[in-house]
Amino acid sequence: MAAAADVPALRWGVMGCANIAKKNVKAIKAAAGNTLVAVASRSQERAAAWAAEQGLDTESGAVTAHGSYDELLADERVQAVYMPLPTTMHLEWVRKAAAAGKHVLVEKPVAVCAADLRLMAEACAAAGVVLMDGVMFMHHERLPRMGALLGAGELGAAERVVSGFSFPADKAFLEGDIRVKADCDPLGCVGDLGWYNVRFSLWAFGYEMPERVSAVTSRWTDGGRVPTETSATLVFSGGRHSTFACGFHTAFSQWAEVGTSGGLLRLEDFVVAAGPDSVRYTVRRPGGLIDDARRVAPVTETETEVLGCNQEASMFESFAACVRAGAASEAAAFWPEISLKTQLVVDAIMQSSKEGGKLVDVAPVSV
Amino acid sequence: MAAAADVPALRWGVMGCANIAKKNVKAIKAAAGNTLVAVASRSQERAAAWAAEQGLDTESGAVTAHGSYDELLADERVQAVYMPLPTTMHLEWVRKAAAAGKHVLVEKPVAVCAADLRLMAEACAAAGVVLMDGVMFMHHERLPRMGALLGAGELGAAERVVSGFSFPADKAFLEGDIRVKADCDPLGCVGDLGWYNVRFSLWAFGYEMPERVSAVTSRWTDGGRVPTETSATLVFSGGRHSTFACGFHTAFSQWAEVGTSGGLLRLEDFVVAAGPDSVRYTVRRPGGLIDDARRVAPVTETETEVLGCNQEASMFESFAACVRAGAASEAAAFWPEISLKTQLVVDAIMQSSKEGGKLVDVAPVSV
Repeated sequence: MAAAADVPALRWGVMGCANIAKKNVKAIKAAAGNTLVAVASRSQERAAAWAAEQGLDTESGAVTAHGSYDELLADERVQAVYMPLPTTMHLEWVRKAAAAGKHVLVEKPVAVCAADLRLMAEACAAAGVVLMDGVMFMHHERLPRMGALLGAGELGAAERVVSGFSFPADKAFLEGDIRVKADCDPLGCVGDLGWYNVRFSLWAFGYEMPERVSAVTSRWTDGGRVPTETSATLVFSGGRHSTFACGFHTAFSQWAEVGTSGGLLRLEDFVVAAGPDSVRYTVRRPGGLIDDARRVAPVTETETEVLGCNQEASMFESFAACVRAGAASEAAAFWPEISLKTQLVVDAIMQSSKEGGKLVDVAPVSV
Repeated sequence: MAAAADVPALRWGVMGCANIAKKNVKAIKAAAGNTLVAVASRSQERAAAWAAEQGLDTESGAVTAHGSYDELLADERVQAVYMPLPTTMHLEWVRKAAAAGKHVLVEKPVAVCAADLRLMAEACAAAGVVLMDGVMFMHHERLPRMGALLGAGELGAAERVVSGFSFPADKAFLEGDIRVKADCDPLGCVGDLGWYNVRFSLWAFGYEMPERVSAVTSRWTDGGRVPTETSATLVFSGGRHSTFACGFHTAFSQWAEVGTSGGLLRLEDFVVAAGPDSVRYTVRRPGGLIDDARRVAPVTETETEVLGCNQEASMFESFAACVRAGAASEAAAFWPEISLKTQLVVDAIMQSSKEGGKLVDVAPVSV
């Protein structure tokens, strides 16, 4: 969505020079109604060098390179903070950002547990600032189009949602990346990848919460504390079912499928769009078995191409719209709530993993 | 494989007029070195009517329609029995068939539990007759071709195997079909569909057994005794992982994917071939993320078409070859062993399902 011409652009500061921040710097530049005014690292030199690498103009003062996160939060030009810090740092810095009156877009997983996420959400609500997680696929225009097919739509309600998300990490990653260090990202593959799988399932079931969760983590690292290969089953009311597998040991793949009794909605690129300007979703209506079960009837397949959406830029545009609508608005309040739902499911996955696959109840959203 | 011209065709009797028998009557007709000489039902009239329906010539005496299973086993022309009876009847009738000196091709699931399967295998071994389960995809010529890609092949070893198998049953099926009656097929969707999922995983891991299994059954029928929606995770040594979902509530689908660290082998029709004369498998080599994680690199995809294989006929040809080689031959002994492996995993799935997803050890193959 384009910002109204008379509304000044939302001014962003980037807190931390993580790799993922590179794509979001590009996204902020590409997003209507958003502008980047500051970056911060733990040293001024590093912040300046990183800013230069991203082609940001620190010479003219258009972008300030701060030598600490506190300086970034003290920067009066900064209205909103993009936070790609390690997960264990989110609670401290989201609360500090809120206290400084800055809106926050925080990378997933939002927190190491739901109790922390509640504290963050409370801090942001009290300060009247927007809190959103960095799940960019939520902002692609194909999502509402696909959503219209489900529920009361042409395909009907989801019966089973299955997804997979993997990439093959090398030895160095598995031993030293922050995403496999218990003191940085203790949720490992469940936080880094599974967060998306869980979110997709929640989306497909209309944000209904699963009742129970069973999960198996078959590989751990960092002294058996951080999961690197996990699968989970989410059981929804009436026995509707979602399963996914995520991990750092299999070739890159990111597919998702929503099955209803009459058809299947399938994506080969549910998290990262295959191309920013052309993504597809496929609707399959299988004919079942024919010839006395010897052959399969042809599948009626509809491929839909959706053009002209850069999901990362769209995320920042959604965020700016929430800021304009106010943190208490329905549009803005949606995000911490679904973050919390996602986190509650992730927490149950971690608990079940540690308890050897046992089905565990998912904690209630309201406490 | 073609039978040698001087070897007489293996003479089959079909025990029971189940729907699935229709496709296997066609398969026996199509299979080189095999011929159908008898069918049996619990009444002679039904057997004769069913035989006529299948276009079998009972008038000339080429095919005999028997009014009981015992008569079929007493028929000296019959050398091998195809048994599509309800699972709970397999133990009795496989043992009777073996005692009558008949080779047996039994529909899956072979038994309600591994203890019963061991009794069947022992009876067949003692009688010197071949025992094979009706998993036709095992006999498609694409399987060895795909297998050559794994392990020491181009793709490397399987890290994760994922599959799905579903069809949408109607209310009548869910309340009354033999596949959902505890006294006929107490394994429900796990026996009817999951048997194939488990077999595919075992195949992909070179028939290595999983160490532990966790499963969730979220829908049961027949008084909560028979599963109709189940997912499972199989954990192999070193934390390699397999997951699948099967059930009677989602649109027809039967896909399987073997992930290695470098690529993915994918089938959209792993159980029932899309066409008897043309099936495909796809090898994907994903390029991962590019453009600072904003886009996905193109996937190198190889579709391989395999022509000229009717997997059902091929199964009967394999069976006849086992009979010629002798029940004690390596070729023949393979089948009861992988049936037992499959059953042991199925048993663990049922146990874990009943114990709320808890990881359970898989019982050893040798006891």
